[in-house]
Amino acid sequence: MSLDASLLPNLRNIATRLRIESIRATTAAGSGHPTSCQSAADLAAALFFAEMRFDPHNPQHPLADRMVMSKGHAAPLLYALWAEAGFIPLERLTDLRLFSSDLEGHPTPRLPFVDVATGSLGQGLAAGVGSALNARRIGADYRTYVLLGDGETAEGSVWEAASVGHLFKLDSLCAIVDVNGLGQSRATELDHDMEAHRARWQAFGWHAVVIDGHDMPQVLAAYDEARSTKGRPTAILARTQKGKGVSFTEAKPNWHGKAMKPEEATRAYAELEAQLVQETRPMPPIPAPPPVPSPEKPGSMPPPEYKLGDLVATREAYGTAIAKLAGVDPRVVALDADVKNSTFSERFEAAHPERFYQVFIAEQVMIGAAMGLAARGAVPFPSTFAAFLTRAADFIRMAAISGVNVKLAGSHAGVSIGEDGPSQMALEDFALTTAQPNFTVLYPADAVATEKLIDQMARHHGPMYMRTSRPKTPVIYANSEAFPIGGLKVVRSSDADTATVVAAGVTLFEALKAHEALATEGIHIRVIDLYSIQPIDAAALIAAGKATRRLFTVEDHYKAGGIGDAVARAVASAGLAVTRLAVSEIPRSGKPDELIDKYGLSARAIADAVRQP
Amino acid sequence: MSLDASLLPNLRNIATRLRIESIRATTAAGSGHPTSCQSAADLAAALFFAEMRFDPHNPQHPLADRMVMSKGHAAPLLYALWAEAGFIPLERLTDLRLFSSDLEGHPTPRLPFVDVATGSLGQGLAAGVGSALNARRIGADYRTYVLLGDGETAEGSVWEAASVGHLFKLDSLCAIVDVNGLGQSRATELDHDMEAHRARWQAFGWHAVVIDGHDMPQVLAAYDEARSTKGRPTAILARTQKGKGVSFTEAKPNWHGKAMKPEEATRAYAELEAQLVQETRPMPPIPAPPPVPSPEKPGSMPPPEYKLGDLVATREAYGTAIAKLAGVDPRVVALDADVKNSTFSERFEAAHPERFYQVFIAEQVMIGAAMGLAARGAVPFPSTFAAFLTRAADFIRMAAISGVNVKLAGSHAGVSIGEDGPSQMALEDFALTTAQPNFTVLYPADAVATEKLIDQMARHHGPMYMRTSRPKTPVIYANSEAFPIGGLKVVRSSDADTATVVAAGVTLFEALKAHEALATEGIHIRVIDLYSIQPIDAAALIAAGKATRRLFTVEDHYKAGGIGDAVARAVASAGLAVTRLAVSEIPRSGKPDELIDKYGLSARAIADAVRQP
Repeated sequence: MSLDASLLPNLRNIATRLRIESIRATTAAGSGHPTSCQSAADLAAALFFAEMRFDPHNPQHPLADRMVMSKGHAAPLLYALWAEAGFIPLERLTDLRLFSSDLEGHPTPRLPFVDVATGSLGQGLAAGVGSALNARRIGADYRTYVLLGDGETAEGSVWEAASVGHLFKLDSLCAIVDVNGLGQSRATELDHDMEAHRARWQAFGWHAVVIDGHDMPQVLAAYDEARSTKGRPTAILARTQKGKGVSFTEAKPNWHGKAMKPEEATRAYAELEAQLVQETRPMPPIPAPPPVPSPEKPGSMPPPEYKLGDLVATREAYGTAIAKLAGVDPRVVALDADVKNSTFSERFEAAHPERFYQVFIAEQVMIGAAMGLAARGAVPFPSTFAAFLTRAADFIRMAAISGVNVKLAGSHAGVSIGEDGPSQMALEDFALTTAQPNFTVLYPADAVATEKLIDQMARHHGPMYMRTSRPKTPVIYANSEAFPIGGLKVVRSSDADTATVVAAGVTLFEALKAHEALATEGIHIRVIDLYSIQPIDAAALIAAGKATRRLFTVEDHYKAGGIGDAVARAVASAGLAVTRLAVSEIPRSGKPDELIDKYGLSARAIADAVRQP
Repeated sequence: MSLDASLLPNLRNIATRLRIESIRATTAAGSGHPTSCQSAADLAAALFFAEMRFDPHNPQHPLADRMVMSKGHAAPLLYALWAEAGFIPLERLTDLRLFSSDLEGHPTPRLPFVDVATGSLGQGLAAGVGSALNARRIGADYRTYVLLGDGETAEGSVWEAASVGHLFKLDSLCAIVDVNGLGQSRATELDHDMEAHRARWQAFGWHAVVIDGHDMPQVLAAYDEARSTKGRPTAILARTQKGKGVSFTEAKPNWHGKAMKPEEATRAYAELEAQLVQETRPMPPIPAPPPVPSPEKPGSMPPPEYKLGDLVATREAYGTAIAKLAGVDPRVVALDADVKNSTFSERFEAAHPERFYQVFIAEQVMIGAAMGLAARGAVPFPSTFAAFLTRAADFIRMAAISGVNVKLAGSHAGVSIGEDGPSQMALEDFALTTAQPNFTVLYPADAVATEKLIDQMARHHGPMYMRTSRPKTPVIYANSEAFPIGGLKVVRSSDADTATVVAAGVTLFEALKAHEALATEGIHIRVIDLYSIQPIDAAALIAAGKATRRLFTVEDHYKAGGIGDAVARAVASAGLAVTRLAVSEIPRSGKPDELIDKYGLSARAIADAVRQP
C-alpha cells in the first residue's frame, strides 16, 4: 500500500514503541541485542504496518506476504512487531529467552510466524528466494521481504542467493539491508559506504535503492519502488544507526549484544517516550491476503517397475523416482547445483521443468532455497554430489533447528566413486546428518529401495537425507517390498549364524559375497541391509546381535560418525559391542573395486574379519 | 617477465602440447576432464613459462610464485605443466588416476607442487588469499595466481575471498577466470557475458581485465597489467572455449568430464599437432626465485600462570594462550570473523596486530585463507563460535584431505551457552571434525589445559580443532601439568570405583559434582577428563572400563558423532559398551544450568545414571 501522509506520526510511534519493547525485553532477559533492533525499527514498522499484507491472527496464512528476519539477533524486534500486530500479548515480550517461552534468543519455527530459524547470519536471503519461488509455483502474488544486517552481507551465501534471485527474476523478493555500520566487534567492512553496497547488489543484477533508513517517507517510497519494480528483485540499502533513538547507544561501539542495565533502560525509555508524537487518526487495519486456498493434495505413487537382477545405480533410480513422485504430488520440486546429469535429477527436469530449479554451483542457496520452499508448503528435493552437501552444512544444521520439510539427496558417496579422488568422495555425510537428532537418514542399496524410500520421504514430514551411489548395483528386492522409515532388512539369516554383518548401499553386495564365500567354509553369517540409519531399528539389531553374538558393520564412510557408530549406539543398552569396517584414512584415487578392497570394505575384508576368533 | 614476441611460437606450442598431454592422460585413465584443460591451456602456458618465477625442481621453494588450480578437475593440465617444466617425467602423465600414482583425479598435496587440495569448487581463491597474506607476513615478493573456472564463481566462497582480497589490498594476488561458458550439465549462469563478470569483480573492489583467453599477446599483456597494478588484486577474465583446439570438442556441450575414446584421441592429436608452429629460438630458463631463506624458528612457550581455583573461561584462556604463543613463534597468525571479543582472539590482535587478520563475517574464507597461510609456512589459528565453523565444513573437509597445518578453534559450544538458543550452540562440531581421520580434536576443561594444548597444537603438524567453552570454569590443574595430544586425565580414582564417567570441558565439573554426591552414598566413580578426543587414549579407557565395569560418557554435544561415540569406538575391541549422556533433541533457549540439567548432562543426571543397576 501507499501510505497516507497523515499516518506518518502513527508509524513513527510504532517504531519508537518497537525500540522500547526491544529494550524492555532484553533488559528483562539480561542479554540480547537491543541496539540491533533499534537500527531496524523504522524499516520494520513501515514494512509491517504500511506495506505487508498478512493476517495478524494467522501468521501461516499461505497467501500472506512473508518477512524473514535474516539478522536473527534482532529477534526482540520481530517479537515486538507481532505484539504490535496483536498476535503476541504485549506482556509476554519480557518472557524473552526463558526456557518456558517460545520467544527464544534467536527466532525458531516454534513460533508460527517464523518460517525458518535464523541466527546463523547470511541464511535468510536464500530462504527468501525459496519463498518467492514457492509463490510462483502456486501462482500466488504474495511478496517476500528479507531483513538483513550489513555485516552478514560478508557471507558468501548472501551472494549465492542474490545471484539466484536475479537468475529467476524474482521481483516478488525484496532484500532490506539495515546498514548500521557496526558489527559485533568493530565497524563493518564497508562501514557506511552506501555506494560500495549499491555496486555489489547492482553487479548481481538487483535493482538497488539507497535510503536513509530512519526517514519514514524515504522508507515508504523504497517499498513502493520495490513493489513496482518488475523482472528483478530489489535491494533496499538503508543507512541507519545502531542503537538509534537512545543518546548513549546511538552509533556507539561496544553495545553489540548487550542488554541495558535496568537503570540504563529507564533512561532509554524516557528518551524514547519523549520522541512519541501526536497522531491525527487511528491506523487502518492491516490489509488481508486472499482467502486461504484448499490444501494441495498429493496422489499415490504407483509401485516401481524394476526386474530382479537389473543393474541400476541408486542415483539413477533416484532421478526416476523423484520425477515419478512429482507426477502425483504437485508440492514436489527439485533443485540442482549443475550436476543433474550425474545425480539424474535431469529426469525430473525433463518431466517437470517448471518445478525444477537450477541454481548452478551454489550449494548453500540450493539448501537455503529448499528450506524456504518447504516452509511455504513445497516438498523440495535438492540434490548434488554428497561431498558437496558439506558446503551447506550450516544450512543443514539450521534446517534441523527449523524442523523444516527438506529432502536432501547426495550421490557419488564413498571410495566406491573411484578415480575422481577424495575431494569428490563423501565420507562424512552420515556424520553430518545423523548428528542432527531430528534428521532422517536413508541409504538404499537397490533401485526398488530407492523408489520406495523416496515415496516415504514425501509422505513423512521433517528434514531427511538420502545417500545414493555411483556404481550400478543389482535389483534385489521385489517391487512389492515395503521400506518403512526406521526399518531394516534381514537379507540372509539362518539358525547357524555366528555373526551379523550390518551393511548398507554398496557394501551390502560385498556382505552378500562374503556370506557366500564363508558358507563354503561352513561359516554362516546374518546379513542386514540397514537402509534406515536414523531412525534405526534398535530392537532388530539387538536381536540379531544376541542371536549371533558378534556384530560387524561395513560402510563406505569414515569410521567416525557413520553406520558403525549408529549401530553401536543402538545396541549399547544391550551391552553389545560392534566391530567396524570403515574407511580409516584419507583415501586416494583408484578404481572403485580396488579402493573398496584397499580400505577394507570388500567381501574379502568382511570374511577375514568374521574369521577372526 | 615481459615476453619477447619472438617467443610467442614457443608459448603457443607449449599450450598445444598441454592440450595433447591432457587428452593423452585422460584417455589412458578412461576418465577425467580434458575439455576443461583445453580451455585453460593458453592461460596456463603463459603463466608458467612467461610470467611466474619458480624453481621447477623445488616446487615448495618458499619464495616462489604460487599457482592454485582452483578448478581442480583440470588436474591433467596442472600435471602437464609440471611435466613441461621438467619436474614430472612426461611418460608418467599417463599414470593419471592410478592407485599407484600421486597424479590423482583432482590435485592433492601428495604432490609437492600442490599447496592445498582442490576439486571442491570455489575454494582456491581463499587459499590464494592466504598465500598472499603469507607473502606479506614474511616480507616476500612472491605472487599468487589462482586459476578458476567461470562456473565456480557461483560459489559464495569466491566472493568472500574476493572481498577479503580487496580488504587487504592484496596486489600480489591474481585471479584468472577461465570463462569457457560451459558447466557440467549446461551453459553457465553468465555464459560468455564478460561484462557481467567484470561488474561483479569490480564491485568487489578488484581491478578487472577482460581478454580473449586464446590470444597469447592479450594473455601476456593481462599478466603484465596484473603485476603492475598496485593496491588491489587483479582478476583476469578470459573468454575461452571449452574443448579448445579440437574440432569435435571446441565449444561443444556434453563433453564435460568425459575422456576421449582412443580413436577420438587419435583424431584430436592429429588436429592439435597440425597447430604446432615453427619456433625461431629456444625458450629461456624459468626465472629463479631468490635463495631459500633459513627456516623460521619457534621459541618455547613459558608455562601458564594460573592459580588453582581461579574462574577462567577456556575461551578466555584461548585468547591469552594464542597471544602468548605468537610472542615466541613468528609463524603464528590468527584470523577472526568479527567475534574477537567473544572468542578473546582480540588479545592476539592487541599483542600482534600485524599477524591478525579480520575477515569479517565470512567463515569460509577464514578457513580457506588459513589453509593457504598454513601451506606456505604459517601456523594459523582461525577462530569463531564453534557453531559457525559448520559454515566452513567443506573447507574443513578439504583441509583434512590437504593434511594442512591449520589450528581451528570454536567457542560457545553446546547448550551451556544458554539464552542465545540453538542457532548459536555447536552440538555437532565433534561429529564434523572427528569424522576426518587425520584431524586432532581437543577440548580443554580449564585454563591450564587450554594453554598447554595450544602449545601442543603449534608443536605438532596437521589439521586440528580445539573446542572452548563460554562459561567460566575453575582452574583444576597445576601449571606444571603436561597435556600430550592423545592423552587423558584420570581426575578421580579409587579401588572401589564401580563406574567410570568420561567427561570433557564443561561436563567435567558436573562429573566432579556427581562424584562428590555419590561418594556420600558410598558409590565411588572414576572420573576421566577426555581432553584429547582424537587421537584418543584407548588403552587407558579400556583399563578404566575393565576396572570399573561400567562406562559412561557425558558431553555437551548431540548424541551422534561426539565423545560417546569416540569412546565407544576406542573400547569396542575390548567388548565394552558405553552409556551415553548427551543432548538428544534440538534444544532451546534457557539459562545454562537449566539447560545442562534439562538435557541430561548435570551432576544430578550423571548420578541418576550411575545409580541405575
